[in-house]
Amino acid sequence: MVKINAERLLAALDEQAAIGRTPDGGLSRTSLSDADLDVRAWFAERARSGGLMVRTDGAGNQHAVFASLRPAAPTVLIGSHLDSVPNGGRFDGALGVVAGLEVALTLADVRAELPFHVEVVNFTDEEGTRLGLLGSTAMCGMLTSETLDRVRMGRAELDAALERVGCSCDTALSARRDFSDVLAYFEAHIEQGTRLERAGDDIGVVTAIVGIHSFWLTFGGQAAHAGTRPIPDRRDAFMGAAQFAQGARQLVLERFAPGVCNVGAVQVEPGAFNIVPASARIAFEFRHGDPATLGAMEEALLALARQAADDHGLTLEITPAGGAEPALMDSRLVDIVERAAEQAGLKRQRLMSFAGHDAQMLARVTPSVMLFVPCKDGISHNPAEYCAPEDCVNAAQVILNSVLLLAGSDSGAGARASR
Amino acid sequence: MVKINAERLLAALDEQAAIGRTPDGGLSRTSLSDADLDVRAWFAERARSGGLMVRTDGAGNQHAVFASLRPAAPTVLIGSHLDSVPNGGRFDGALGVVAGLEVALTLADVRAELPFHVEVVNFTDEEGTRLGLLGSTAMCGMLTSETLDRVRMGRAELDAALERVGCSCDTALSARRDFSDVLAYFEAHIEQGTRLERAGDDIGVVTAIVGIHSFWLTFGGQAAHAGTRPIPDRRDAFMGAAQFAQGARQLVLERFAPGVCNVGAVQVEPGAFNIVPASARIAFEFRHGDPATLGAMEEALLALARQAADDHGLTLEITPAGGAEPALMDSRLVDIVERAAEQAGLKRQRLMSFAGHDAQMLARVTPSVMLFVPCKDGISHNPAEYCAPEDCVNAAQVILNSVLLLAGSDSGAGARASR
Repeated sequence: MVKINAERLLAALDEQAAIGRTPDGGLSRTSLSDADLDVRAWFAERARSGGLMVRTDGAGNQHAVFASLRPAAPTVLIGSHLDSVPNGGRFDGALGVVAGLEVALTLADVRAELPFHVEVVNFTDEEGTRLGLLGSTAMCGMLTSETLDRVRMGRAELDAALERVGCSCDTALSARRDFSDVLAYFEAHIEQGTRLERAGDDIGVVTAIVGIHSFWLTFGGQAAHAGTRPIPDRRDAFMGAAQFAQGARQLVLERFAPGVCNVGAVQVEPGAFNIVPASARIAFEFRHGDPATLGAMEEALLALARQAADDHGLTLEITPAGGAEPALMDSRLVDIVERAAEQAGLKRQRLMSFAGHDAQMLARVTPSVMLFVPCKDGISHNPAEYCAPEDCVNAAQVILNSVLLLAGSDSGAGARASR
Repeated sequence: MVKINAERLLAALDEQAAIGRTPDGGLSRTSLSDADLDVRAWFAERARSGGLMVRTDGAGNQHAVFASLRPAAPTVLIGSHLDSVPNGGRFDGALGVVAGLEVALTLADVRAELPFHVEVVNFTDEEGTRLGLLGSTAMCGMLTSETLDRVRMGRAELDAALERVGCSCDTALSARRDFSDVLAYFEAHIEQGTRLERAGDDIGVVTAIVGIHSFWLTFGGQAAHAGTRPIPDRRDAFMGAAQFAQGARQLVLERFAPGVCNVGAVQVEPGAFNIVPASARIAFEFRHGDPATLGAMEEALLALARQAADDHGLTLEITPAGGAEPALMDSRLVDIVERAAEQAGLKRQRLMSFAGHDAQMLARVTPSVMLFVPCKDGISHNPAEYCAPEDCVNAAQVILNSVLLLAGSDSGAGARASR
């Protein structure tokens, strides 16, 4: 078995973690900031010095290629992102890019003869400083001018920011890549959850990135004097919201696990000690990786909300607030990653990704798969984010094994992996 | 049985309702406003033309006296307030004053020979434009300079407002009345609830004005990604608050009825669709007329809050937010009002007042009692507030009967009613 260079990998992780480091050991490396420009330079230098070819596309995504001996060969992509949220952690995104780079460098070390190019991608603005998944959306040909008109801080500011990496909104709009010669996309990431840690597993093989449905639910009752109106005669809007929140949690646990739901915001009017609430508006979302189950959840949860409203004599207003459909990982690539983990002697489980990743865009245009490694207590987007060195090494090793398994398979010889 | 003059009573109710009337038939007659000054003039004129003596005390309270033939006789008070909330109704407070006035005028009509003076009081600012129960608090000797420093709109503004009725903060502070010669205080009021209406009763004999205990309860959990953090691993602050709100309602219904509770305001942080709430702060109050029961409610409800916090792995911060202790009505006066209602052939029930009234101040210094009449759908503080003419008549008749019963009793001859 070809082994990745653990020492080089961990050194690289430390090096990138020093770029944009916060005093408490976290990272503030928002997309296209000074620190992001610095880490891009670091990435390009490290790739070039290892013999890889580096280029930047119209969306500012960086590509480092370990080329096949056959120039017309197809391509296998390995990607993630080096940008972070403000005051975030040093593994979210960075681990996937650094692991991909280590895979390519190891392949270069052993002068591997592969039937495909291996291309490591650092995507622009995965975290959404201006537009979440900007780079992968553009590369997958799904970025529109209308979307750019709605980015945080405005389109002109985005133009100026992209100019720092020689790009613009116009170049981003034409950054669509031809995927007809792409065999697969791999992405390693910290789990940002506790499923692996709780099970004592080393590797999570992602079967789907969950879809999210979000709603504003407004329970409408009647304001009343909280002294004189007897409890049975009230139409207390907050009681409907509280009953629903409790019931939704229970329903999802019992019928839709490992799906999740959340009541994240609550607005009660008029909002005084001595007035029975006339209105309670809650921000509600739920997630699942299976499209049919996500639909069934919606039906059951909205019925539950209607029941809670009825039980308290309330009206209910349901306002969709966006979301995303599930992104299914490629079943053949899932099998390959499982075998790759087995080769490395690692304990693994199949799971869903409950957070969004660049892979959800790639999955729409090419066979894609993600693998997770544990992170301490599931903490992420936080300076306390931590991934143990052996888990970082495992991430790179399992991707390397997967790439080599793919190279030895039918599809590695030219056929695309099955959908 | 001496009968009150129903026609005169209803005409008086209509006359006062025209002063400060809103286009939708409600009243905006906030304390010491132009409309309030107009209704004060109307009250004084109506009382004087009926042969009563009228004076204003240092807190702006108006007193209209039907004097006993014995100048040194004690006094029976009948009171309520002619001020309203902005855009309120035309019976809240006004009914009690107009009914009291009608009782005094009827006594004058029949040249009643009573062992006590009958004094009808229109209290200043019951509704709290500047300070709720201002007039009754001052008359009962419980107004302090510190309280005046904290009134809404400030002390200087209150000084200026009181000057409109020839008073000031200084005169209000020395408006304490000597209660050693006061036998009883009666107050009639619309129920502002639905207990009488639901039972088909005519008269509610109030046994106590409820005490209120208020708390800010802050449930503290941990912010987490609403996708990646599995539900069982969350410390969701809002789930604690929701469980408590539901449980408190059920507990009060089952163990403490007719006591009530309310969650009137809710603040959830950080407040985003995709973040599990780290903190949920609720404004919680509960009410009961029996001091021991109110204490037992507090113990049981705060234990319930602690349990809800424990169940979800949360911290709980309990911050008292004020309140008031119950004011017990005088048991002998309660009996008298019951007999008075019986004499009038009216269906009656004993109940608590779940709202505050001037009587809660008077009860601290003299034997006091309230009686309620039904108001449509319990609606109050609203232009739609409505009390049927027969119920208005009943209010005055039962007070008249009570006064006459008191006059015929031992206490009416000079002894104070029992506490």
